[in-house]
Amino acid sequence: MSLQFITCGESHGKYLAVIVEGMPSGLEIDLKTINHELWRRQQGYGRGARQKIEKDEVEILGGVVHGKTTGAPIGFLLTNKDFKIDKMPELFRPRPGHADLAGSLKYDQGIRPVLERASARETTMRVALGGLAKLFLKEFDVEVVSHIVRIGPVAVPEELLTIAEIKKRVAESGMNCAFPKTEKEMIKIIDQAIEKRDSLGGQFEVRASGLPIGLGSYVHWRRKLDGRIAQGLMSVQSFKAVEFGLGTKLGEIFGSEAQDEIFYSKEKGYYRKTDRAGGVEGGMTNGAELSVRVTMKPISTLRRPLASVNMKTKKSEQAEYERSDICVVPAGSVIGEAVVAYELADVFLEKFGGDSMGEVCRNYEGYLEQVRKS
Amino acid sequence: MSLQFITCGESHGKYLAVIVEGMPSGLEIDLKTINHELWRRQQGYGRGARQKIEKDEVEILGGVVHGKTTGAPIGFLLTNKDFKIDKMPELFRPRPGHADLAGSLKYDQGIRPVLERASARETTMRVALGGLAKLFLKEFDVEVVSHIVRIGPVAVPEELLTIAEIKKRVAESGMNCAFPKTEKEMIKIIDQAIEKRDSLGGQFEVRASGLPIGLGSYVHWRRKLDGRIAQGLMSVQSFKAVEFGLGTKLGEIFGSEAQDEIFYSKEKGYYRKTDRAGGVEGGMTNGAELSVRVTMKPISTLRRPLASVNMKTKKSEQAEYERSDICVVPAGSVIGEAVVAYELADVFLEKFGGDSMGEVCRNYEGYLEQVRKS
Amino acid sequence: MSLQFITCGESHGKYLAVIVEGMPSGLEIDLKTINHELWRRQQGYGRGARQKIEKDEVEILGGVVHGKTTGAPIGFLLTNKDFKIDKMPELFRPRPGHADLAGSLKYDQGIRPVLERASARETTMRVALGGLAKLFLKEFDVEVVSHIVRIGPVAVPEELLTIAEIKKRVAESGMNCAFPKTEKEMIKIIDQAIEKRDSLGGQFEVRASGLPIGLGSYVHWRRKLDGRIAQGLMSVQSFKAVEFGLGTKLGEIFGSEAQDEIFYSKEKGYYRKTDRAGGVEGGMTNGAELSVRVTMKPISTLRRPLASVNMKTKKSEQAEYERSDICVVPAGSVIGEAVVAYELADVFLEKFGGDSMGEVCRNYEGYLEQVRKS
Amino acid sequence: MSLQFITCGESHGKYLAVIVEGMPSGLEIDLKTINHELWRRQQGYGRGARQKIEKDEVEILGGVVHGKTTGAPIGFLLTNKDFKIDKMPELFRPRPGHADLAGSLKYDQGIRPVLERASARETTMRVALGGLAKLFLKEFDVEVVSHIVRIGPVAVPEELLTIAEIKKRVAESGMNCAFPKTEKEMIKIIDQAIEKRDSLGGQFEVRASGLPIGLGSYVHWRRKLDGRIAQGLMSVQSFKAVEFGLGTKLGEIFGSEAQDEIFYSKEKGYYRKTDRAGGVEGGMTNGAELSVRVTMKPISTLRRPLASVNMKTKKSEQAEYERSDICVVPAGSVIGEAVVAYELADVFLEKFGGDSMGEVCRNYEGYLEQVRKS
Repeated sequence: MSLQFITCGESHGKYLAVIVEGMPSGLEIDLKTINHELWRRQQGYGRGARQKIEKDEVEILGGVVHGKTTGAPIGFLLTNKDFKIDKMPELFRPRPGHADLAGSLKYDQGIRPVLERASARETTMRVALGGLAKLFLKEFDVEVVSHIVRIGPVAVPEELLTIAEIKKRVAESGMNCAFPKTEKEMIKIIDQAIEKRDSLGGQFEVRASGLPIGLGSYVHWRRKLDGRIAQGLMSVQSFKAVEFGLGTKLGEIFGSEAQDEIFYSKEKGYYRKTDRAGGVEGGMTNGAELSVRVTMKPISTLRRPLASVNMKTKKSEQAEYERSDICVVPAGSVIGEAVVAYELADVFLEKFGGDSMGEVCRNYEGYLEQVRKS
Repeated sequence: MSLQFITCGESHGKYLAVIVEGMPSGLEIDLKTINHELWRRQQGYGRGARQKIEKDEVEILGGVVHGKTTGAPIGFLLTNKDFKIDKMPELFRPRPGHADLAGSLKYDQGIRPVLERASARETTMRVALGGLAKLFLKEFDVEVVSHIVRIGPVAVPEELLTIAEIKKRVAESGMNCAFPKTEKEMIKIIDQAIEKRDSLGGQFEVRASGLPIGLGSYVHWRRKLDGRIAQGLMSVQSFKAVEFGLGTKLGEIFGSEAQDEIFYSKEKGYYRKTDRAGGVEGGMTNGAELSVRVTMKPISTLRRPLASVNMKTKKSEQAEYERSDICVVPAGSVIGEAVVAYELADVFLEKFGGDSMGEVCRNYEGYLEQVRKS
Repeated sequence: MSLQFITCGESHGKYLAVIVEGMPSGLEIDLKTINHELWRRQQGYGRGARQKIEKDEVEILGGVVHGKTTGAPIGFLLTNKDFKIDKMPELFRPRPGHADLAGSLKYDQGIRPVLERASARETTMRVALGGLAKLFLKEFDVEVVSHIVRIGPVAVPEELLTIAEIKKRVAESGMNCAFPKTEKEMIKIIDQAIEKRDSLGGQFEVRASGLPIGLGSYVHWRRKLDGRIAQGLMSVQSFKAVEFGLGTKLGEIFGSEAQDEIFYSKEKGYYRKTDRAGGVEGGMTNGAELSVRVTMKPISTLRRPLASVNMKTKKSEQAEYERSDICVVPAGSVIGEAVVAYELADVFLEKFGGDSMGEVCRNYEGYLEQVRKS
Repeated sequence: MSLQFITCGESHGKYLAVIVEGMPSGLEIDLKTINHELWRRQQGYGRGARQKIEKDEVEILGGVVHGKTTGAPIGFLLTNKDFKIDKMPELFRPRPGHADLAGSLKYDQGIRPVLERASARETTMRVALGGLAKLFLKEFDVEVVSHIVRIGPVAVPEELLTIAEIKKRVAESGMNCAFPKTEKEMIKIIDQAIEKRDSLGGQFEVRASGLPIGLGSYVHWRRKLDGRIAQGLMSVQSFKAVEFGLGTKLGEIFGSEAQDEIFYSKEKGYYRKTDRAGGVEGGMTNGAELSVRVTMKPISTLRRPLASVNMKTKKSEQAEYERSDICVVPAGSVIGEAVVAYELADVFLEKFGGDSMGEVCRNYEGYLEQVRKS
């Protein structure tokens, strides 16, 4: 927990902002890269109107001087063009699947302020953070990528791709999908959902390469890398399942098929030929690629409204409908990438310490050398 | 994060201990109840020798006077009968699936001290904590139960049980399984694994009832209940996937089948007829039962050793073998219960504040009344 | 630790911002009140040019809808008129008493980015936070006031004032001083310092009334109210000593003169006739007024520069001079008030829990009733 | 905040314990050294009976294998010989100056469990932690010493001693006092207090040498070293004032007399000829000695009891008397040393990262080299 952040802002508020504390000095901040991540979050077939209206771009609140971080807290500010929160109507019929009902009762207020904060629009800030984390990780040749593996009933083939292949293929996809044929079917099923005034969820995978052995730890529950990534991911709107490596399949097979045997060569050091564990053993990176799968539930706001209750009259009525997307798994995968990148940057800083990029790098190199020698 | 804890101790060390800070005063501590949870953790077909040798029992380190908590940090102490850590042999061939390799490189030490701390024996302390949390939750009629739903290829039928049914059925099971027929098949497959010198994982479900609407929150990522439970669970040895409600299935279906519609009656207040979300919407309890599924990988230590590398010679050799279990999913489900109970106690205290049980209860009742009126 | 905040921004950056997490919903936010606190921070004889150029005013980043808090993180944004950070000259001769030298070496960067973040301009955000905390505390009739008790060699008479008297008197003072005669002498000594191209520090006192018995706790070191206030205060620029109650004098006297004897009446409940402890016993409020004294060192930037070293040449040279104030004790007292108010709001929320102001108040009233009865 | 700890236990409970998390592996743990610190805490003229009855010694709960830390949480366990908590009488007349009254009301319980936890006996665990921290700091040639500078009206002469001198002189003192003549007067005044059935406080100074420039930080309030040390110290029983460097005197003098000018030589690098700041500028070590002064109030328990109220009858009665010391400033100075050592170890680990002592040292050396070159 070397890094900490707080986001702020509402979906239709004037601003969205985030401040993150703990980044070293001397990291070059290219806002274009960060804004490109925000652009990626807005893509994907099945998005509603807002993603077309607004092009999300952040400016810097602080922590960057002459294009470089200074060690001070870094802030990003996004000004909403679609700013009208105090003019938005109050709502009374909570939407199933959303924070509406519980949030309204808990905070003893209307549904509007709940919906505005609980909205997935807040994830713009997590993606901005992820962009920052990626800039940091790039200095250590760590890459974090994602691709979608399922939209509703349509799943990609069970084919293991390298990170390079994923990168190349998703670059040509409008859906962050590495399998063009499946992508077409995905679009079809989304069209069906649109027609049925319904929505769809799915699944994506995040992978990270270039990680040294020994990030995270087994010594204390809060230091376990898989636990931290799981919290980060499960705290994103609509994320309902998190699996490392073979995930739920690991419950079905024998131990002899479930482990990653250990090998050694002078060039690679210790290495694995398989990655069933998803790159995490004992709460630590094991030198293999990190691999985690997330299941997203379908968007909760349906054009075909579900049963709800009018909170004023207590009578059964249809749930409210607010402008919404139909399927956001591609966006979800970008958010998932961001969350994983952030958590990796955090364990990096925890292990290597250091206040300037030069110092972090020196400490990192020293450790690699130590591992090579041991 | 009203509660915090640190555990301490090694598998073959003299002691295991935990200190937890943040519990209110005035809670009656029945050590028998807590030790009963420890006993439950030691059960289940497929355990190795140690569980039969040691009967785990804790004593109180502090925080309890005249049988009641005082508001001070509470500690539990377990004295290992099998105490011999400084005489245990050093190991050189890291076991795949364990912390051995990464832990040894990270901490620049032998495998022995890694294995001793990374061992699942540490979960005794988390189960003790869970026992304490259950005593706390009982005051609010919150129940946390679990049952196993899969051992390797053998899964229980897809039948929705009430918590009362689960409790009744698992009380008669030696495997924490609610389906006696399936249990027999599970034992058979475990026998197969023993014969093949192999191991097995599986899946269990934790359910909690009696939770008020609005524990946890959507406002800040660290306050989300599902994120916190996911971190807690994924930080346990061998836990590799966490799913809320329908979990991975939510990625396969349409939105209209994935939500829990909202109803109201004078007697029940707001309620649901389904529980696809697992009782969590927007990072908060929604009044339905909490339901979370965990997948455990098979025990990593196999009697039929896997390929490894001798860390001294860098030559390929078979991995070390330490006395081990064959299948620990029933134990895992007890640990899962404990983790969920702890996290629920934590969000309870966060929402209701209070320094004495009387005060927590008064605040809780006030909120229930507020919800009833709104 | 129910509240957490991160500030962001540089002295001559475009923005200063703060996000605070953990405030309940339903608190009315009057920006004028908060901006009035910022105005107070800019007052006092002995300020430099900047305080006259800029009138600090914040706008809301989020967390407030229709003028009320929503339970979501609250942010404040201040836009610097004097925005020119990337055009400011680099500096090479670190100023004694500032972060310049250590910050530059630690973060491996020039002095400019250090000075920009280490500047006391960051305290605008802490004062904004304090304004928010005061709005919260007002709902419980808690008042936090301050007054200066020393500027350099000039100290106020040793006369114990009530909080009402302090409030009334400082309202008529341009120096936040409750003794008009002494104030005149203070202005004289400041004039001397201006003439000598020197600077002055001093001392102020913060007092708070209306606090219930039992905020903070003795059970765990991080819960102690005096420790938390001490950290908050000592983390402000130039604050070098913190004393509770009689402070350093308590080291000089006998125990029989150092305690506050306990009395009881039906009307007041338990009460004290003295307040030597400063209202804190065992890390908790004891029902008496909170009283803490802070010593500020003189402004480190002198017009009569001190000896320093040119970091490029390593030759002895005079320290840099940046536009500066001469004496900021009145401003310091406003910051001290803000810090104390924030810490009090934090322990309030920790004790009483609650997500809405209604709930916090209900819980608070319940506790007062409990104390009355016990 | 790389380290975290929780203590547990009551004054007359069976155990006192502490678990600390975050220490690297490979540090040799000499229990004798740690127990010697505990012995030092029990010394000093003016102690009551208990310090003579019990010789405090801890054993290790975990985190140490073959005499070395392993990176796992480290625990210490002290078994009280004087164990009788459940047989101690309940008390009804709260002692002024103690947690008795507020603690009893807050936690809605009797005075006994409050007194048992609030007792300064808990500081044994903080001293054990400090002993551990000193072992860590020793690897970097950091020394932390203390000496008492005042007992009631008797103060040591204003003479600046080097750390070497302090160490040598206090080694020969039974009072941790560096001035033998003053020590005699101190003993006299304590004798007076005994005779008057009264108690005495005083003041001590903690000094630390060998600290690299740049521990702690100005970038975020919680990272400031002076704030952290102030919280640590002010959270100790009876500590009422904390001053860095010249402390309260800094409020009385002109800026030109209050700073530490900066010099440079090839051999020493940047250095100071004075230490008015107490070694901390901008919340960071500045390369000079750390110097902090603490004022302790007189022991609150007097043999000549103060006015109190019987909590059952609400009638005025004399406060309870529990066996007590007369003056504990020498013990306090040992505790203060421990607190400072702990906080220094914490900022060390925060800056340098690293999981093994070898790694921390390598990172530390790399930084020293960087500073030398810049």
